[in-house]
Amino acid sequence: MTLSPLACTLLAAKRRVGLSFAELGSRLGVDEVWVASLIHGQATASAAEATTLLEALAIPAAEQPALLEQLSTYPVKGALDPVIPTDPLLYRFYEILQVYGLPLKDVIQEKFGDGIMSAIDFTLTVDRQEDPKGDRVVVTMNGKFLPYRKW
Amino acid sequence: MTLSPLACTLLAAKRRVGLSFAELGSRLGVDEVWVASLIHGQATASAAEATTLLEALAIPAAEQPALLEQLSTYPVKGALDPVIPTDPLLYRFYEILQVYGLPLKDVIQEKFGDGIMSAIDFTLTVDRQEDPKGDRVVVTMNGKFLPYRKW
Amino acid sequence: MTLSPLACTLLAAKRRVGLSFAELGSRLGVDEVWVASLIHGQATASAAEATTLLEALAIPAAEQPALLEQLSTYPVKGALDPVIPTDPLLYRFYEILQVYGLPLKDVIQEKFGDGIMSAIDFTLTVDRQEDPKGDRVVVTMNGKFLPYRKW
Amino acid sequence: MTLSPLACTLLAAKRRVGLSFAELGSRLGVDEVWVASLIHGQATASAAEATTLLEALAIPAAEQPALLEQLSTYPVKGALDPVIPTDPLLYRFYEILQVYGLPLKDVIQEKFGDGIMSAIDFTLTVDRQEDPKGDRVVVTMNGKFLPYRKW
Amino acid sequence: MTLSPLACTLLAAKRRVGLSFAELGSRLGVDEVWVASLIHGQATASAAEATTLLEALAIPAAEQPALLEQLSTYPVKGALDPVIPTDPLLYRFYEILQVYGLPLKDVIQEKFGDGIMSAIDFTLTVDRQEDPKGDRVVVTMNGKFLPYRKW
Amino acid sequence: MTLSPLACTLLAAKRRVGLSFAELGSRLGVDEVWVASLIHGQATASAAEATTLLEALAIPAAEQPALLEQLSTYPVKGALDPVIPTDPLLYRFYEILQVYGLPLKDVIQEKFGDGIMSAIDFTLTVDRQEDPKGDRVVVTMNGKFLPYRKW
Amino acid sequence: MTLSPLACTLLAAKRRVGLSFAELGSRLGVDEVWVASLIHGQATASAAEATTLLEALAIPAAEQPALLEQLSTYPVKGALDPVIPTDPLLYRFYEILQVYGLPLKDVIQEKFGDGIMSAIDFTLTVDRQEDPKGDRVVVTMNGKFLPYRKW
Amino acid sequence: MTLSPLACTLLAAKRRVGLSFAELGSRLGVDEVWVASLIHGQATASAAEATTLLEALAIPAAEQPALLEQLSTYPVKGALDPVIPTDPLLYRFYEILQVYGLPLKDVIQEKFGDGIMSAIDFTLTVDRQEDPKGDRVVVTMNGKFLPYRKW
Amino acid sequence: MTLSPLACTLLAAKRRVGLSFAELGSRLGVDEVWVASLIHGQATASAAEATTLLEALAIPAAEQPALLEQLSTYPVKGALDPVIPTDPLLYRFYEILQVYGLPLKDVIQEKFGDGIMSAIDFTLTVDRQEDPKGDRVVVTMNGKFLPYRKW
Amino acid sequence: MTLSPLACTLLAAKRRVGLSFAELGSRLGVDEVWVASLIHGQATASAAEATTLLEALAIPAAEQPALLEQLSTYPVKGALDPVIPTDPLLYRFYEILQVYGLPLKDVIQEKFGDGIMSAIDFTLTVDRQEDPKGDRVVVTMNGKFLPYRKW
Repeated sequence: MTLSPLACTLLAAKRRVGLSFAELGSRLGVDEVWVASLIHGQATASAAEATTLLEALAIPAAEQPALLEQLSTYPVKGALDPVIPTDPLLYRFYEILQVYGLPLKDVIQEKFGDGIMSAIDFTLTVDRQEDPKGDRVVVTMNGKFLPYRKW
Repeated sequence: MTLSPLACTLLAAKRRVGLSFAELGSRLGVDEVWVASLIHGQATASAAEATTLLEALAIPAAEQPALLEQLSTYPVKGALDPVIPTDPLLYRFYEILQVYGLPLKDVIQEKFGDGIMSAIDFTLTVDRQEDPKGDRVVVTMNGKFLPYRKW
Repeated sequence: MTLSPLACTLLAAKRRVGLSFAELGSRLGVDEVWVASLIHGQATASAAEATTLLEALAIPAAEQPALLEQLSTYPVKGALDPVIPTDPLLYRFYEILQVYGLPLKDVIQEKFGDGIMSAIDFTLTVDRQEDPKGDRVVVTMNGKFLPYRKW
Repeated sequence: MTLSPLACTLLAAKRRVGLSFAELGSRLGVDEVWVASLIHGQATASAAEATTLLEALAIPAAEQPALLEQLSTYPVKGALDPVIPTDPLLYRFYEILQVYGLPLKDVIQEKFGDGIMSAIDFTLTVDRQEDPKGDRVVVTMNGKFLPYRKW
Repeated sequence: MTLSPLACTLLAAKRRVGLSFAELGSRLGVDEVWVASLIHGQATASAAEATTLLEALAIPAAEQPALLEQLSTYPVKGALDPVIPTDPLLYRFYEILQVYGLPLKDVIQEKFGDGIMSAIDFTLTVDRQEDPKGDRVVVTMNGKFLPYRKW
Repeated sequence: MTLSPLACTLLAAKRRVGLSFAELGSRLGVDEVWVASLIHGQATASAAEATTLLEALAIPAAEQPALLEQLSTYPVKGALDPVIPTDPLLYRFYEILQVYGLPLKDVIQEKFGDGIMSAIDFTLTVDRQEDPKGDRVVVTMNGKFLPYRKW
Repeated sequence: MTLSPLACTLLAAKRRVGLSFAELGSRLGVDEVWVASLIHGQATASAAEATTLLEALAIPAAEQPALLEQLSTYPVKGALDPVIPTDPLLYRFYEILQVYGLPLKDVIQEKFGDGIMSAIDFTLTVDRQEDPKGDRVVVTMNGKFLPYRKW
Repeated sequence: MTLSPLACTLLAAKRRVGLSFAELGSRLGVDEVWVASLIHGQATASAAEATTLLEALAIPAAEQPALLEQLSTYPVKGALDPVIPTDPLLYRFYEILQVYGLPLKDVIQEKFGDGIMSAIDFTLTVDRQEDPKGDRVVVTMNGKFLPYRKW
Repeated sequence: MTLSPLACTLLAAKRRVGLSFAELGSRLGVDEVWVASLIHGQATASAAEATTLLEALAIPAAEQPALLEQLSTYPVKGALDPVIPTDPLLYRFYEILQVYGLPLKDVIQEKFGDGIMSAIDFTLTVDRQEDPKGDRVVVTMNGKFLPYRKW
Repeated sequence: MTLSPLACTLLAAKRRVGLSFAELGSRLGVDEVWVASLIHGQATASAAEATTLLEALAIPAAEQPALLEQLSTYPVKGALDPVIPTDPLLYRFYEILQVYGLPLKDVIQEKFGDGIMSAIDFTLTVDRQEDPKGDRVVVTMNGKFLPYRKW
């Protein structure tokens, strides 16, 4: 699996300046996951947000216009190749879908009726929960319920 | 996409008795998502849990032994065919992985180091968040962080 | 490619009673495409709608309860196997996506911003447009625009 | 998913000159979707149309001949990789085919007989329908019905 | 690779009565390839044609109604599983597409412009050409040219 | 879908000199489809044929040796990626195989016995048949019948 | 991987009667590999050969007609599912193609020119070669060379 | 399908010097097929063998070290892309596996017991057998039989 | 993912008699993993071993002959569908191949030269290693090294 | 199958300096397999470990910073393309999963309960076992057992 050129450039700059995603997010006024999705070419920034990000990453002025254009253009989304990810951290989320997908569907539909959880009107956050037996990752997905329309 | 015979039988019984997953879960002392994953053949019950479930679903006594054996045997897990699900509710979770997978990986690794979120020492819950613009689905995944071992 | 048992049963009954999808739709108070999607197991009817449909199709009383349960249960959706359809009529819609998908994306995004056309809050109609050089099929898709949320 | 070099070049030029697809379409005397499909290498322009487009996009004279040749050569069509698109906007059209494909086939065939809607003698338009609950995307496909020939 | 139940039934009957496809075709007033495509569930017969075929094949009266309904219903077409055929005779046609597909496209487009050969307004015949070095199969495809529409 | 570098170079030269495939074929003493298959890297030319072609296409002398070597080396054949072509003109030939493949197999075997039509001792021609309702493409495949050997 | 019903029936009968493929082959006057390919539904027998085989396998008279029809009908060939075989003995032949396929192609073409080894006018035999370090399997493929035709 | 850079370089040199695989093989003291597999990056040479080969191919001294390293490093083997080869000569060997694979397995196992023919302790040769009806390709595979171990 | 009928029958019997794989193995004089592979239809037993197993599992006499034949026939091996397993326990072994496959190859080749570890002359054992931080699974694979033959 | 640029660079340097993986591992204080997995971009080194490795491999100072960054960044893991490996040494491990995967699962679950062997808290070693009939490869996998959590 490989990263896009945009992500490679911005992640290398991020390592050089030593800022975390949370610090970048607070400069743009957005969540750390959203700023990471922008860096991976999966979201669209306003010109102001893109400039703030490029400045925070200390991108040389000469390289900024091309990157600014990429960050503010609506991207063709979807970043995994092969389509079933081989990276172990990413695969676990695919495994959750394989093992808990149908139960999740049944519980959501029982509580909300026939419809879906939006992946567009949607937020995603990551928290660290301390635990003496080993800290835990807490991923929270929050999406608007959209009921099927009958016509 | 089709359901397993086990799930078809138990979900039909559930519709007949009119109990929710939450009500079934409280009888077994487990979460509603876990009981749904048991019904879909993705988890293993103790004999006591399996019997409680079959009684709650009013399964005739003659059919209970075969179902009890299925519910208490370690299953071969994974329930989606085709492997990229076509059901719109399920697909949204695959889409989240395509669009937000790499950002999620970067944020988790920045917070925890090289490793994964366990999908085994793991819980999954679904909540309904009221919202005047349309209620929202909140899915919370909570998994132990497992750091890569160096040897 | 094959049809589901539900669709086979209901389509055979429909041929026997000689009603069109439009006539069935008017009895249920819904569009002809929606009633066809119900028959193919891709939508959920209320008990009243399901009963109206089964009566209109002259389904024997003994067979009605099982079909009524299927029609009013939230289905696992998605009906094409193989996933790229081989039926020529269906394939043309896949071809439109291959040839005109990216242009469509660009035009929608230029008019609406970054987001999608909902396939849930969505209607689909088919009209016949008379034309001396050969009548034309007019397919109209109407879906709510959903802008990406920034968080 | 990535764009072709032709599309990258022309879309970047389009952003620089700030013209919409509709404005480009009116200069060529064609619909906005068709001009977008030309830019994505899915249609063939006459030399006059190609020149008009390149002038409108302010392409430097030195770069015009190569682009003019590409725009006026019959392309090898089909632009999605992977073949089931991962971009959420594009995927929704694939999902419509999965969920409403068989119903659509049945309704078209009931109205027209055994045959297909042409994707060649075909037009595609996008309209914005204002709606207080959120504006709606209206996609209209209009294709000649082609009946199967018996021989 | 397997045949559909419809094809198995009709081909077994055909072997029993000992009629060739050409003889069946002449009874229905159609080509031998078309009658074979009907038997394989890839075309639709009128009630009269279906009855003529079933009589010619000496199908018992009790079995005729179900077969007549199948033969006169618009089929979901496409009969190869796996999608790249493993049968050597069928594979050769796929190989011709792999090896001569792009040359064929170029020659057709040079002679006709941008468009396609219709596979709907289309006929297909098979002839035997005697040759002292070994007889030859002559397959003739004849389809209407459909030019792309500009809009 | 993309073309090989060899095909791109030779097709661009062909457009510059303005010769048709038929004209190129007559210079080499071969059919227009065969010369197109040579240009797409699917056939092998003698040194004399390759030189005649390169001269006809006005390829500069400095570039001729490398191209001559490519044209006269036995190629690794097969040119479609993805393996089921997305180009609408090419796809129609795949669709013919899906819809008419098994009928074709049955008719060929009924006329010739168990065996195949050779795709090696094989010719392929394209003709234009004038028709007031729209001209027609006639594709003729002519291959030696090869019976299965019993041993 | 599973066997066809035809092969299951005939192989079970073969185990009951205790005859080897070589013994069956000598009764039919054919090679042991060919008789095995007939039993797996990959070749066509004459009525006399099929009867000899069924008698040798002691198939009850009542079951013979259906099996005789299957053995003497031209089969749809190709027997591996999934298409890349998982059985280790079969996989080794696929591995030979992966590792030695291109070398084999080059050597054959160097000796014979552009063309193929026929898999139709073809024989295949298996011999046991004694060797003190472990006996060896010798597989010999013998196919007519077919040169590409230029037209 | 494309060749590796190593194979392209060495095969071009081979054409320039005009040596056959058999002649190269005799200089290295190995079979012609083995030397072809070395050139395609599917086998490992000793430094002496690699040097002999590069000298025989008249590779300039400056280019020899890099090629020598490649030829004497254990390669990652397997050379076909796509995995089911589209080249007709190569495909025939895949077709032999589809059509004669299970018969071959049965005959080998009947003669040797449960196990496999090794593709490692293995040789492969190609011979030309003269035949007035057309010369024949004889491919001989010779591999050690390896019985399954029980433990 | 589903189990074969053979495995379902034998595993249900094993649960009824309450014997472990190790206990079954000691009755047959083989390892517990080998007896499990026999039950899953991936190995061949002698008639004596098969009878011992069926007796140990208390299979009724009437059902023994059919099972005995299955257990002592050389199976078509390979049991995973889909080919990349979705069961989390099984997937981890695939993941080990994705992440540690190339390192493993390099270390084996550095220690042994160009060749493979046999999966035929091969044993596999599972041990439990007690550990206060959580017991550990120890999987030991032991296969004969097979060097590539040069010829 | 190809290697990553990182692996190509480091493996070429390793050949030049002539150190084994075991020697490199002892310099870093880690196992030889782990150092090989680092070189293949499947593990993360500390800055000190990365520097030690680059020095041991005699990488020129100018090239060290870029490589050091790659070695100490959390990689996107998974290195096999195509996903079912074609290299014979690697394939054998996939074959072990196909043939012995379900038996392994059953034995592990019988000994440990429902859960998995971790591939994260995991070590992998390779040993050479001398054997007069041919030395043997011993691969030992050691992973923490993780029981499924019920909630």
